[in-house]
Amino acid sequence: MKPNKIVVIGGSAAGAKAAAKARRLDEFAEITLIQKAPDLSMASCGYPYYVGGVFNDRNLLLCTPTGVTRNPVFFDKAKAIKALVETEVLAIDRKEKQVVCRDLKTGSEQIIQYDKLVISTGAKPNMPPIPGIRLDGITTLLTMADTDYLRRICDEKKIKQAVVIGGGLIGVETCEALQLSGVKVTVVEALDQVLTFLDWDLAKLVENHMRSKGAQVLTSKGVKEFIGKGGKLAGVKLADDTVIDCELAVMAIGVRPNSSIAIAAGLETGKFGGIAVNQYMQTSDPDIYAAGDCVEIPSRISGEPVFAPMGDLANLEGRVAGENAAKGNSATFPGTFHTGICKIFDFSAGSTGLSIKAAERMGLTDYQTVVNASPDKPGFMGAKLLVSKMLVSTTDQRLLGYQCVGTGDVSKQIATAAMAILGKLTVEDLVNADLPYAPPFSLAIDHFIASAHIMQNKLKGRMTGISATAVWEKIQRGEHPYFLDGRSPDEYEEMHLGIGEHLIPLGALRSRLTELPADENAEIICFCKISLRGYEAETILRAYGYTNVQVMEGGIMAWPYPRKK
Amino acid sequence: MKPNKIVVIGGSAAGAKAAAKARRLDEFAEITLIQKAPDLSMASCGYPYYVGGVFNDRNLLLCTPTGVTRNPVFFDKAKAIKALVETEVLAIDRKEKQVVCRDLKTGSEQIIQYDKLVISTGAKPNMPPIPGIRLDGITTLLTMADTDYLRRICDEKKIKQAVVIGGGLIGVETCEALQLSGVKVTVVEALDQVLTFLDWDLAKLVENHMRSKGAQVLTSKGVKEFIGKGGKLAGVKLADDTVIDCELAVMAIGVRPNSSIAIAAGLETGKFGGIAVNQYMQTSDPDIYAAGDCVEIPSRISGEPVFAPMGDLANLEGRVAGENAAKGNSATFPGTFHTGICKIFDFSAGSTGLSIKAAERMGLTDYQTVVNASPDKPGFMGAKLLVSKMLVSTTDQRLLGYQCVGTGDVSKQIATAAMAILGKLTVEDLVNADLPYAPPFSLAIDHFIASAHIMQNKLKGRMTGISATAVWEKIQRGEHPYFLDGRSPDEYEEMHLGIGEHLIPLGALRSRLTELPADENAEIICFCKISLRGYEAETILRAYGYTNVQVMEGGIMAWPYPRKK
Repeated sequence: MKPNKIVVIGGSAAGAKAAAKARRLDEFAEITLIQKAPDLSMASCGYPYYVGGVFNDRNLLLCTPTGVTRNPVFFDKAKAIKALVETEVLAIDRKEKQVVCRDLKTGSEQIIQYDKLVISTGAKPNMPPIPGIRLDGITTLLTMADTDYLRRICDEKKIKQAVVIGGGLIGVETCEALQLSGVKVTVVEALDQVLTFLDWDLAKLVENHMRSKGAQVLTSKGVKEFIGKGGKLAGVKLADDTVIDCELAVMAIGVRPNSSIAIAAGLETGKFGGIAVNQYMQTSDPDIYAAGDCVEIPSRISGEPVFAPMGDLANLEGRVAGENAAKGNSATFPGTFHTGICKIFDFSAGSTGLSIKAAERMGLTDYQTVVNASPDKPGFMGAKLLVSKMLVSTTDQRLLGYQCVGTGDVSKQIATAAMAILGKLTVEDLVNADLPYAPPFSLAIDHFIASAHIMQNKLKGRMTGISATAVWEKIQRGEHPYFLDGRSPDEYEEMHLGIGEHLIPLGALRSRLTELPADENAEIICFCKISLRGYEAETILRAYGYTNVQVMEGGIMAWPYPRKK
Repeated sequence: MKPNKIVVIGGSAAGAKAAAKARRLDEFAEITLIQKAPDLSMASCGYPYYVGGVFNDRNLLLCTPTGVTRNPVFFDKAKAIKALVETEVLAIDRKEKQVVCRDLKTGSEQIIQYDKLVISTGAKPNMPPIPGIRLDGITTLLTMADTDYLRRICDEKKIKQAVVIGGGLIGVETCEALQLSGVKVTVVEALDQVLTFLDWDLAKLVENHMRSKGAQVLTSKGVKEFIGKGGKLAGVKLADDTVIDCELAVMAIGVRPNSSIAIAAGLETGKFGGIAVNQYMQTSDPDIYAAGDCVEIPSRISGEPVFAPMGDLANLEGRVAGENAAKGNSATFPGTFHTGICKIFDFSAGSTGLSIKAAERMGLTDYQTVVNASPDKPGFMGAKLLVSKMLVSTTDQRLLGYQCVGTGDVSKQIATAAMAILGKLTVEDLVNADLPYAPPFSLAIDHFIASAHIMQNKLKGRMTGISATAVWEKIQRGEHPYFLDGRSPDEYEEMHLGIGEHLIPLGALRSRLTELPADENAEIICFCKISLRGYEAETILRAYGYTNVQVMEGGIMAWPYPRKK
């Protein structure tokens, strides 16, 4: 039997994984990995941490856990894979089943035959034609070359100010990296929030944290021009004509599929420009698979194809593409629940499934949400804050989405929620979930379960919630609900909103009911630090006949606006 | 309408939660909480951390997150709950629907009527009639009084040596607490391992870690006698007559339901002596509910009632009992998946669902397991080790159990698995799960997903695994498989098993096949540090015709026996 000739274009996450998986399934396949960059199998999600000095050994981005660099020699010896680096694929000839590629060092071209081809050409940065965008001092953070450039800048310590254009995952990670290196960073985001996988209110908590670390965050600000001085970047002019002086700008306004070679070969693409693939990661040509940031995959929420350039998905897709290229279509890839997470200084922010924003975009209305703020573990174990938003269907009470931000253990919250969504779990399932508990790890009732409890209270009509945003809008409209802050005077003295609230500690509420509005239909909004006491206040007031009582969800800890104190 | 009279016996986790939940659902109920101990709503799972000096403010065990002590005044003011502390319930009179209780300070008795009663009397320690068990210096770690006693001992720094009898959750947590306080600790466990929620092989990794921290761990050792000197403990004599000198012994050989008052009242109990309850946490008397460590609840794995004295379950059960006592039977509690976790020095150990041991006890045979050892995140982010065991049904490929130990993020692993089990997820679901990924939190392919990948490889016949235990038994039987260590010479030099293994680095394997046994049916066992290269070696050898090749799962990192180096 003639060996199966497998060619993989692209040797970062998806491509390297596909090649390795194919090898494990077919020792005698002829596998060639063609990579335009000089490096292979780079840990590209780690770039910001090398730039920021979290570690200093560049090779750690390129080596196996035991320290062996994943270079062509490694691929040859350990995997029997022929890896061609600094080699660009010029064209795919589907009729002849061959690729034409050029060695970028020598310029020589060669033709490589394939039986099965895997395309994993990744993504390329969005670089809009803003005047001055070619100035020296403007970069992205997507390649090892970018990484080396930014790391050198951080090490040299000559640059004082930088602007990061875009507040997505890479934008906020780059902000952290530069700020930790002593560069003063301004993040400029055209939308009204950073991290669009979060709803606005949770994103604002992230922005507030970034500011507390010294970064400037500007939202709803477009960039009009990059200002140069002698060919070098000197400032960024915003749409409102204000100028931010800076010597460095990092473009991080997202990426798009690098699918041009696939398009040139006549393969089908989707509405985001990504290569269209079926559940086998197979393109419109049955002999060609594609995986990673160059493809579109199904959203497991909407069922529609989406562009989801995430490192974990690229690896999983590559594994499927590699298996099917080696063995015929046997493995399937079902798509994404839009799970994401990032670290921003001492904060983490993650999301899985639907946000309110995404639900609105889909035109959904049959859902309920709840915001929960609470510590991740007991105070005596060094509790840290979690603020989360849970979204469930009111039709069948299934969990549809969960977001979480804070200094606490966000990662576990999102993993828990991602599994719950995958398992089609309902609120009833979640309220009595059996999660691991010991004080070093969580509260006796984990934050996630507590969120489900609050959701259940809302769904059963035991609690009427109102979001901080809705409260703020009431205030902006000149409305004057009766605000009841149920904390102690000491707590109030330390921190308070200053929205005209009345301080009645929960423990005194039953004996001070006469201080409340005489009208039983008056609008009363209760809260406390996290709104547990706020909820208890609501139950008391309802029992005493008040008909229009709400709890401001998440209390002061989830309040994204300025506080008086 | 007459107010609902709710009486709750026991004011720790389940009782306090039941009373608070009942109050939120019925502002006008008359709720009385009767507590024998002087404190209320104690964070009893935190006792070892106070003993060990993780924190020094005792009140943190007793206060709300905002620092208010949960004493009778707090319960009165904030919850309108009458809390009677240092008050013992002498009897339940079901016919008259009243309880008789006695104030332990004054000796005065009173009778309290109830419409609904909640029993949450907790558990009591197993204290076998070992000679000398009444000696001064022998305690448990189950009450605030125990905690104060042990903390004083740690603070005084007079005691040099302690023995902890029992290597369960409380035993290992107590070991850590005392050892961190400078006391030299020996843990004596009658069974052949600590932490019986783990299988033997993973438990041995925990024991090895405990030893590396200076604690002595003796398994399969019974205690014959406590030796006294002048009425004070001076040593522990084991069944084999060896004596361990010590001035302190902590009994931690488990607890049993404190159900005597319920039994005296004629309520049904189960085979573990716990109060029998239905899904509403309702006892055999419809007006009496029970919750917490005094009850038996269903195992969601076997369907059988079990005794599961865990703080998180107590809270959830209390919530259900409180709701149903207040509102009639509306909330249900489905039982436990046996999820547990604990911290032991820098290690964590957790489990959910079935272990092999539990599966064997149930007589199951249609399951497959896999051991996975891998870092929890990239090396450049400070990777820490996870060693896990996944157990799935071979009938329908559903996840049935997951155990994990190591210095890495065990808590997230167990939470993820617990949700996967609750969602009835299969291996096919797990291999492409969409978990949160960024380098500070996990590998691109999370350890949990990687475990599912290995499991899938085994189920598809692509990998044949053998456990470290089975390898060890082969060696003990005098068998001589060909052991292939696929690591580099440097790695071998640093650490190796010394079981007669042949070092052939994976990268050299294809060119050194002649060094392998000539007989294609020879038994070959491959491994490496974590057995990823071991697996790749297996695929190569199979391709070259070897028919009897196995991978030692988890590699050297999961090897629980002594290493040569």
